[in-house]
Amino acid sequence: MVTIKDIAKECGVSIATVSNVINGKNKAGEKTQKKILEVVEKYGYRPNQVAKGLRSKRSGIIGIIVEDIAQFTIPNIVEGIMQHIEEYGYKSMLINLRLYSRWSDKWFHNEDMLDTLLKQSLSEMEAMQADGLVYVAVHARDLAKIPKDIGIPAVMTYAHELNPEVPSVMVDDELSAYEAVRYLLDKGHKKVAIIGGREDNMHTELRLKGAERALNEAGIEVDKNRLIYANWNRQEGYKAACKLFSGGDFDSIFCMTDRMAGGVYQYMHEHGIVPGRDYSVIGYDGQDLSGYLVPGLTTMALPLERIGEVASALLIEKLEGVESGIELDDNVVRVPCTFIERGSVKDAGR
Amino acid sequence: MVTIKDIAKECGVSIATVSNVINGKNKAGEKTQKKILEVVEKYGYRPNQVAKGLRSKRSGIIGIIVEDIAQFTIPNIVEGIMQHIEEYGYKSMLINLRLYSRWSDKWFHNEDMLDTLLKQSLSEMEAMQADGLVYVAVHARDLAKIPKDIGIPAVMTYAHELNPEVPSVMVDDELSAYEAVRYLLDKGHKKVAIIGGREDNMHTELRLKGAERALNEAGIEVDKNRLIYANWNRQEGYKAACKLFSGGDFDSIFCMTDRMAGGVYQYMHEHGIVPGRDYSVIGYDGQDLSGYLVPGLTTMALPLERIGEVASALLIEKLEGVESGIELDDNVVRVPCTFIERGSVKDAGR
Repeated sequence: MVTIKDIAKECGVSIATVSNVINGKNKAGEKTQKKILEVVEKYGYRPNQVAKGLRSKRSGIIGIIVEDIAQFTIPNIVEGIMQHIEEYGYKSMLINLRLYSRWSDKWFHNEDMLDTLLKQSLSEMEAMQADGLVYVAVHARDLAKIPKDIGIPAVMTYAHELNPEVPSVMVDDELSAYEAVRYLLDKGHKKVAIIGGREDNMHTELRLKGAERALNEAGIEVDKNRLIYANWNRQEGYKAACKLFSGGDFDSIFCMTDRMAGGVYQYMHEHGIVPGRDYSVIGYDGQDLSGYLVPGLTTMALPLERIGEVASALLIEKLEGVESGIELDDNVVRVPCTFIERGSVKDAGR
Repeated sequence: MVTIKDIAKECGVSIATVSNVINGKNKAGEKTQKKILEVVEKYGYRPNQVAKGLRSKRSGIIGIIVEDIAQFTIPNIVEGIMQHIEEYGYKSMLINLRLYSRWSDKWFHNEDMLDTLLKQSLSEMEAMQADGLVYVAVHARDLAKIPKDIGIPAVMTYAHELNPEVPSVMVDDELSAYEAVRYLLDKGHKKVAIIGGREDNMHTELRLKGAERALNEAGIEVDKNRLIYANWNRQEGYKAACKLFSGGDFDSIFCMTDRMAGGVYQYMHEHGIVPGRDYSVIGYDGQDLSGYLVPGLTTMALPLERIGEVASALLIEKLEGVESGIELDDNVVRVPCTFIERGSVKDAGR
């Protein structure tokens, strides 16, 4: 099948230009326009949404609904989405549901509150005639946010959408946690303590699964005395360190957020224990602060921009017929974190 | 003059409910609706935009145009705006210009690039029939972004708009830097070094002015040997520390960002110098990372949410006739930073 990319290449213009001409926006010169339309006709190219019976009149706008723009994961996912869709001549409009800012964590396990808000936002996106929709969740869970009758292509990011028409792009938490713990084991550690997030959270569950897989492969059972659930933040990390260091038997700590690792650093500093010398610490998230800790925190950086980019590619595939080449597994793409090696893990020999 | 607040109070309902009824949205019960309309008539209340001859049909949507959502200052300003406008029953739509992500710093002093983008975004906001507009700049400068014929109330944040119809809400950099340096002097320091941002930047200029005022009040001249311009980030802070410590005569450092202070910490750590014991350091911004440094960095936290809230209040004043009580000086509101005292400044005696 001929794609918009092929048309652009043959005409020697950008994809955005082809898209504009096809969508009747008079942004290209007359000559270019004529050339593009000729090539389009020559190959019988039809934008994908026509083939799929979606509405043919385009606004050129992608709607983005985010669960809370003030949470650190969201802006970079948004940047990834926008960067990619703009290459194809689309613009975007964003609606912020403000879930944490509005309700703190009272909306967990109470998605009805959220759905009332969302319904309004979806109407606004419809009124705006958005050509496509990306939903950016604030934490991973199974959810049903995209109505079956939405009528435009949609993609879920950072959580798992149950609507079978809608692909989901998530962090590969299982693999990334596997790699983090595997790294500790490869460095010669044998007693890995784990500071997890909330116990009822999908990120915690998947990261634990990955950690367990790494340990099991090395012939080590997960020791429940070395596992503490906390609530993602620095204070909780500090408290978890208090518990671990009061008699626990371990040589390294895998923290499921950099902030909790920051709490562990604080405890260690107060007790004259040096991370990366006396005990190894590894974080998760790749937040700015991880690089300011001393020693720098070795961590798994969330692939936020990449998640946005993959989501856009899936959307553009449906809108423009540009093959994304992205493989889905049961309608989900899982993007692994990027490993950042710094000084918080010592070589413990083998 | 009777305001929407008075109407709401007399009817025993929220401002949002009154706003909805006045704007013909059937969200209140019949009885409530009747009551509200009676009270509105009794006082002859007219929403402000009618009095001002603005269009009377409302979309209930405030447009927000941000220069780059992936820059750390922006999401919290946006949160402040949204939190406040939602109290008045408004929703919002956001457009992200992606200036840094798109062009790195090549758009500085080349606002034409920006204006082409902005023109499109303003059309989109118009097509959406936004009732009001807030523009969120990524750094302070004099700019002319809001067209005179925009036809809806608009507010500039984080920079200075030249259109006399449009108020600007900015950080009070002069006062906040004054307070930072004043704090160092009050703690007994006499030789304050300054690591500034880019020399061609309005934030640098204003913060320097404030620092100078504090020094002059204490009978101290600004010593050019103790002033280094850098480019806001950690690496530049590190380099500035190299220069300062190679022979400079100073007892404390005022850094115009926390990131640069992080670079100073790094240098000091590498050279066995302890912040808050050997030399005092004070930061600016109040970023998360400032609390993870050891010792915790004393800093001036940017009043981001408050800037958003003030901007919204000015907008709501025009849209709903609710007096904001906010005083403007030459059409500008300057919001001071919040001082965060931690352990990086020692008591040097007097």
